[in-house]
Amino acid sequence: MKELNVGLIGYGFMGRAHSNAYRQAGKFFDLSYEPVLKAACARSKDKIQAFADNWGYEGVETDWRKLVERKDIDAIDICTPNNYHHDIAIAAAQAGKMVLCEKPLSMNPAEGLEMVEAVEKAGVANMVWYNYRRVPAVTLAKLLIDQGRLGRIFHYRAVFLQDWTISADLPQGGTGLWRLDAAAAGAGVTGDLLAHCIDTALWLNGPISSVTAMTEIFVKERQHNLTGKVEPVTIDDACAFLARFNNGSLATFESTRYARGHKALYTFEINGEHASIQWDLHDLHRLNYFDHRDDSIVRGWRSVHVSDSDMPYMDKWWVPGLQIGYEHSFIHGVADFIKGLETGEPAQPTFRGALETQYVCDAVLKSAKSGTWQAVGA
Amino acid sequence: MKELNVGLIGYGFMGRAHSNAYRQAGKFFDLSYEPVLKAACARSKDKIQAFADNWGYEGVETDWRKLVERKDIDAIDICTPNNYHHDIAIAAAQAGKMVLCEKPLSMNPAEGLEMVEAVEKAGVANMVWYNYRRVPAVTLAKLLIDQGRLGRIFHYRAVFLQDWTISADLPQGGTGLWRLDAAAAGAGVTGDLLAHCIDTALWLNGPISSVTAMTEIFVKERQHNLTGKVEPVTIDDACAFLARFNNGSLATFESTRYARGHKALYTFEINGEHASIQWDLHDLHRLNYFDHRDDSIVRGWRSVHVSDSDMPYMDKWWVPGLQIGYEHSFIHGVADFIKGLETGEPAQPTFRGALETQYVCDAVLKSAKSGTWQAVGA
Amino acid sequence: MKELNVGLIGYGFMGRAHSNAYRQAGKFFDLSYEPVLKAACARSKDKIQAFADNWGYEGVETDWRKLVERKDIDAIDICTPNNYHHDIAIAAAQAGKMVLCEKPLSMNPAEGLEMVEAVEKAGVANMVWYNYRRVPAVTLAKLLIDQGRLGRIFHYRAVFLQDWTISADLPQGGTGLWRLDAAAAGAGVTGDLLAHCIDTALWLNGPISSVTAMTEIFVKERQHNLTGKVEPVTIDDACAFLARFNNGSLATFESTRYARGHKALYTFEINGEHASIQWDLHDLHRLNYFDHRDDSIVRGWRSVHVSDSDMPYMDKWWVPGLQIGYEHSFIHGVADFIKGLETGEPAQPTFRGALETQYVCDAVLKSAKSGTWQAVGA
Amino acid sequence: MKELNVGLIGYGFMGRAHSNAYRQAGKFFDLSYEPVLKAACARSKDKIQAFADNWGYEGVETDWRKLVERKDIDAIDICTPNNYHHDIAIAAAQAGKMVLCEKPLSMNPAEGLEMVEAVEKAGVANMVWYNYRRVPAVTLAKLLIDQGRLGRIFHYRAVFLQDWTISADLPQGGTGLWRLDAAAAGAGVTGDLLAHCIDTALWLNGPISSVTAMTEIFVKERQHNLTGKVEPVTIDDACAFLARFNNGSLATFESTRYARGHKALYTFEINGEHASIQWDLHDLHRLNYFDHRDDSIVRGWRSVHVSDSDMPYMDKWWVPGLQIGYEHSFIHGVADFIKGLETGEPAQPTFRGALETQYVCDAVLKSAKSGTWQAVGA
Repeated sequence: MKELNVGLIGYGFMGRAHSNAYRQAGKFFDLSYEPVLKAACARSKDKIQAFADNWGYEGVETDWRKLVERKDIDAIDICTPNNYHHDIAIAAAQAGKMVLCEKPLSMNPAEGLEMVEAVEKAGVANMVWYNYRRVPAVTLAKLLIDQGRLGRIFHYRAVFLQDWTISADLPQGGTGLWRLDAAAAGAGVTGDLLAHCIDTALWLNGPISSVTAMTEIFVKERQHNLTGKVEPVTIDDACAFLARFNNGSLATFESTRYARGHKALYTFEINGEHASIQWDLHDLHRLNYFDHRDDSIVRGWRSVHVSDSDMPYMDKWWVPGLQIGYEHSFIHGVADFIKGLETGEPAQPTFRGALETQYVCDAVLKSAKSGTWQAVGA
Repeated sequence: MKELNVGLIGYGFMGRAHSNAYRQAGKFFDLSYEPVLKAACARSKDKIQAFADNWGYEGVETDWRKLVERKDIDAIDICTPNNYHHDIAIAAAQAGKMVLCEKPLSMNPAEGLEMVEAVEKAGVANMVWYNYRRVPAVTLAKLLIDQGRLGRIFHYRAVFLQDWTISADLPQGGTGLWRLDAAAAGAGVTGDLLAHCIDTALWLNGPISSVTAMTEIFVKERQHNLTGKVEPVTIDDACAFLARFNNGSLATFESTRYARGHKALYTFEINGEHASIQWDLHDLHRLNYFDHRDDSIVRGWRSVHVSDSDMPYMDKWWVPGLQIGYEHSFIHGVADFIKGLETGEPAQPTFRGALETQYVCDAVLKSAKSGTWQAVGA
Repeated sequence: MKELNVGLIGYGFMGRAHSNAYRQAGKFFDLSYEPVLKAACARSKDKIQAFADNWGYEGVETDWRKLVERKDIDAIDICTPNNYHHDIAIAAAQAGKMVLCEKPLSMNPAEGLEMVEAVEKAGVANMVWYNYRRVPAVTLAKLLIDQGRLGRIFHYRAVFLQDWTISADLPQGGTGLWRLDAAAAGAGVTGDLLAHCIDTALWLNGPISSVTAMTEIFVKERQHNLTGKVEPVTIDDACAFLARFNNGSLATFESTRYARGHKALYTFEINGEHASIQWDLHDLHRLNYFDHRDDSIVRGWRSVHVSDSDMPYMDKWWVPGLQIGYEHSFIHGVADFIKGLETGEPAQPTFRGALETQYVCDAVLKSAKSGTWQAVGA
Repeated sequence: MKELNVGLIGYGFMGRAHSNAYRQAGKFFDLSYEPVLKAACARSKDKIQAFADNWGYEGVETDWRKLVERKDIDAIDICTPNNYHHDIAIAAAQAGKMVLCEKPLSMNPAEGLEMVEAVEKAGVANMVWYNYRRVPAVTLAKLLIDQGRLGRIFHYRAVFLQDWTISADLPQGGTGLWRLDAAAAGAGVTGDLLAHCIDTALWLNGPISSVTAMTEIFVKERQHNLTGKVEPVTIDDACAFLARFNNGSLATFESTRYARGHKALYTFEINGEHASIQWDLHDLHRLNYFDHRDDSIVRGWRSVHVSDSDMPYMDKWWVPGLQIGYEHSFIHGVADFIKGLETGEPAQPTFRGALETQYVCDAVLKSAKSGTWQAVGA
C-alpha cells in the first residue's frame, strides 16, 4: 500500500478531529493509500509534542515553513486559525504538497482566489474540510435530490444556532477563543457557521445569485485575551440573510451564538414540488423526508434512521440501528480524499469549490453593511 | 328532522363530555336525528339543576328510576359511577329506551351479560362509549389494518399511564374520586384505563385468548371521603399483563396512576409483517406509520398529521393542518350512534361488543390473584 | 344574563369557526353576556339560509347594510373577504354596533386607520380575531415572557408554511379561493399568514422598527374563477423578511404556500438571555421551553403538554393530558371579548392594536418591491 | 506506560467493536496501560489474518487454547459465539489471564457460576461487555438515580425491538447467523437482547425477585446453514415478561426480532415518585427527564442532549452539541477496565455481576415453559 505522509498544522479541536480521521479511515474503508502521521506543527514546542505523542505523529515542527519544505511529507493539513490559511496553503502548493485546509477557505475572496490559483497552478490535490457533506444523512439528501425526487425546488432554509457566547464575561481572542477575534477569524458566525450552511446549500441547491443581510453584535466590548484590555468586539455575533438561488428558489439563512438552548443546531430544509427534506445536526443520524406522492392517508414526514448498510458510508460501520457520530464525517473526508487520488475525481469541495462559499459570505457581509441586496460573485 | 330525546344521568366529567357531544354533533354532521336534551338526572337537585341550566337540558330529575320511565325520552345515557350501570341499563332497556353507557360496561362479566341480554331482549339500540375508537387517528389505524397493509400481526403493545394518585395525601371515594373506590368503580386502573386499551386492541387485532397479569397497590391506605376514616385501598393502582391473541400475536399491556410525567399517556403499537402503527393520546391527532415496502433509502416512521379531509371524520371539521381535540371523539360517537339508527348497523361497541372487554378485564384480575395464565371468556 | 346579539357576515371557514365559538363559549366559561345568534348575512339567500339553519341563527339578511342597521343587533362580526372589512366596519361603528373583524384588519394601513378612527369615534367595543393569541400554549408563552423568565431577547423567528397551491391547475379567485385574488385579499401570504406571525410577534416581543423583504410568485398565471380566463397571479405566493425589533432583537419571518409537507406549520421561537420558547401550530397543545438556569446535567428542551388546569384557559376544559384543538382559540376569543365588556379592559387586539400589524405588512410589501430596508410605521 | 497485551478471539461484529476500542481508548482517555493488540484468534487462518492485518494485531492464532497459554498475553477477550464462553474463560483464568467476555456471560447460570468461580479463584481481572452502561446518557441516568432525584421507584419498562428475522427465507446457524441457532447462542432474544435490558435494569433499579414470561417462535422452521436442511427453529423469536423488583417496583420487559420498523430499539423508562427517565438507543445521545418539582407551568419532559463536557465521558470527546455514537460505548469500556486495574475497583459488571443477568434470563425461560411465576436466583 502506498503511503500518504501527512504534516498537520494546529493542535486544537480540528487538529484532533483530523488526526483521528487519519488513524481511523483505513480501518473501516478499503484505501490504496495509508495515511502516515509524519509531523505535527505549532509554535509551542511543548504543546505540539504532547499532541504528537498522543496521536502518534512521528515528529514535530514549530515553524510551518519548515514543515512545508520537508521532502518526506506529501500533504499539508491546515488546522490553524483562518488568518494563516492563505500563506500556508500557497507555500505548500508551491512546495508541491497536496493541501487539505479547514473551512472557511480564507479570510476573504481575494485571498481565496490566490489560494485556488496556487493549488491549480501547482497541480496538487486539494480539499476544504466542509465535513457536514459527509454526514451520511446529508450525503443521502444529496442523493435524493440528484435522483430528482424533489422536483422543482421552491424553498431552502438553514440555521446554525449556538448559545456559548451569551455571557458578557467571556473574553475574546487567544487560544480557544480566536473565533471571537476578527483579526484571526475574518468574521464571526458568517465565516464560522454560515459558511457550513452555505457550502451545503450550494452543493444541494446550486448557486446563490443575490442576498440581503443583517448582522449584529450583542455584546459590544469584551476583555481581549491577547491584549488584556477590554476592546470592542468586531466579529458578527449574529447574521441572517435572505437569498435567491439561480434555480428560482428562495432562501433564509441565520446564524447566531445567542440562541439559548442550542449548542450546535445546524438544520436545513429544502422544499420541492414533490418532496421535502429536513436535517438537524443535533440528531445527525436521521433525515426527515416527506413525499407528496405517498398515499394520502399514510402521508407524513418520515424519520429515516440512516444506519442501514445501503445508506451512504454505512456499509463500513456497524449494524442497522446503531448510529455513528460527529467525528465520522472527518473519517469519511479522509476516505474520500484518498479515493479522489485513486480515481482522479477530486473529493469535494476543492479550493475552487469552497471559493464559492467565500463569495457568498462576502456578499452577505457587504449587504449587512450597505443594507442593500448584493449580487454574489467574482 | 326526527328528535332523539336524551335523558342523561350524572353530571361529572363524562356528563359534560356527552352533553357537549349532543349539542355539537348536528352542527358538523348531517344527521337525521336531532339530539334534544330533555332531562339531566342526579340525586343532588342543586347540582343537577346547575348542570342542566348550563347545557340547556329542558328539565331535571333526581331519581333515575323516574327518568327511565318518562315517556318523552328516547335514550338514556349513563354517566354514573360504574356500580349503577347495571341497574339503570336494565331498567332503561325494560322501559324500551335506547341505552348509551359510559365504559366500562359493568362491574364484572356477570353483570355485563345481564345488561347485554336486557338490551337485546328489549331490542333497543345500545352503545358503550369507548370514545378512543373515534379519534380520527385511531379510526385511521383500523382502516389501514382492514386494508391489509400490515400483513400478519406479530405484536401488540399498549400502555395507559397517569400520575395523579402518587401523593399519599389524596383521599379515596366520593365525588370526583369514586374511581379510587372499589365499591363504586369495581376495579382500579384495570377497569378505568386498561378497559380502553383492551377495547381498542380487540377492535384492531381481534380476540385475546389468554393473559397473565400482576397488580399492585402502592399506597396501601388512604383517607376515605365517604367514611372520613383512613381505610385500606382496594383498587389496583397499577396493572400489567401479557396476552396472546387468537391470531397468534403477542401483547403487553400496562396501566398505572404512578407513572410520573404522564397525564393520560395512552399509547398503542401494532407490528405487522409489512407495516407497523403507533398512536399516542397525548398527540391524538397524529398516527405514526412505518411501511417496510418503502424504498429502503427513504424508509422511516411517518408522522401522519390526521387533519386532511380524506381522513376519518375530518371532512366535517376545519382545514388541513388544524387539529381537533379530545371532546370530538364523543361528538363522533353521537354521530355514529345516530348513523347506526339510520342504517340499522349499530355503532360499535354495542353492549355485546363491550362485554368482551369485561371478560378480558376479569381474566386479568383473576390472573393477578392466582399468578397463573387465565383463559379469556364466558 | 345579558344578551349579546350577534349579526355575522360571511358563511365560509371563519363564519363556521365564529358561529361555533358563540355557541360554545357560555357552556365552558362563566360569562355575563350570552351570545345570541340573531342573523347571518351573505348575498346568496340559499347559502346563508342553510348556514343560519345549521348554526341556529334566528334569521338571515342578504344585504350587509341592512344587517348593520338592525336595532336588535349589538355586534357585527365580519367574516367576509378582506376587501369588505373597511366599509362594513365603518358602517357598523357608525350604527353604534360593536365590531368584531376577522384578520387582517384591512387591505392596507390607510383603510385600517379609518377603521380605527371610526370605532374609536363611535366608542364601540372592537376586536380583530387574531385567534392564535388564545391558543393556551401561546398565551402561556406570553405569560412566561411577562414573568421575565427569558431575560433580554436576542432572537425571534417565525414561519407559516403551507403547501396547498403548488399545483398549477389550482384556479384563483371566487368562493373558497378569494385568498388567491389580490383584489379580494389585498395580498397573498403576507396578509393571510404572516399577519398572524406578526401579530403574535408584536404581542410577545414589542414593536418592529424596520424590515427587508422578498416576495415571489411561483406560478405566474392561473385560471381565474370569476372571469373564466387565465390571468396573471398578483398575490405573493411566498414572502420572507428580516426584521429588527425596538428591543434590539433580530428576527426572520417567512411564509409560503409552496412548502411541501406543511399544511399549516405556524411556528415561532424566541431566544432570550436565560430561556427560550418554541411553539408549533401542528401540535398546538404543546409549548417547548428551555431554561439555562436548570442544573446542567438535566438541562434540555422541555415539552410542556399544556392541558393542566393551571394553564391559561384550561381550567374550563377537560382533565390533564386531554388536548383541545384549533376551534377553541375562537371560543376563548368570544369569552375574552365578553370579559372585556365586563371589565372595560378590551380584549386584544383591538382595531388599533391590529393596525400595527398592517403597518408591518405594508413595510414588508414595500421593501419587497424596493429591495431596501423599510422603517415600520404611520 | 504499562502495556496491556490483548489476545482476542473472534473476528465478527464484536471483534471489530472491541479492536477499535483498544486502539481508540488511549487517544481520548488518560490511561496508565496502553492496550497492545498481540494476537487475534479464530479457526480460519485466512479470515483471522485479514482481520489481524486490518486492525494491527501483531500475530494470529487458530487454536484458542494456544492463545490462552501464551506468556506474552495479559488479557483474553472473548468475542465468540456464546457456547465457547465457558471453556475459554475458565482456561484463560486458569492460565492467569485477565478475561473480558462478550455478553451474555454464559449459556446458562450453571456455566456462569463456574466461570465466576474460576476468575475469582484465579484472582484475575474480569469484565463482561454490557456496553450500554457506558453510553453517556445511560451513565447519566445512573447518576441521576444515585443522586436520589427520582425518589421511590414505582415502574420500570424496557423493550429491545428488532425486525431483521421476519423473512421466512432467512436461514439459521453458521457465520453471522449463530444468534439464531440455540446450540451456539443458548437462547434467542432473551440472551441476545433482553440480557442487555436486564443488565441495565439491575444496575439502575436493583435486583429482580420474580418474573412471569412468554416466548414465541413465529417462523417454526428455517434452512440451517450448517446442516443444509430445513430444521425446526429452537430459539425464542420473541419474549416478554412481567417482573417485580426487590424495591417494590413493577416492570415489563419485551424483546423481539419481529417488530417491523425497529432496527435496534432498546428503550427503557423508569418512573419515580418525583422524576422519571427515558432512554432510546436509536437516539442514544439524548436522555429524557421529567421532574415533577419543576414549576407546574413549565413542567414537561426534557430532552437532554448529552454532549456537554460535564456529562459522563463527554469531556474526552468534542464540543457541546456534537454527538458520539455506538462504538464509543466500547471505548469507554476499555477505559473503565483499565481504570479498574489502576484503582482496584473493577469495572462493572464483573463476571459475578453479570451472573445476576443469567439468573434472570434463566427464570424468564423457565417461566415461559411453565407458565408460572418464577423466583429469580441461585
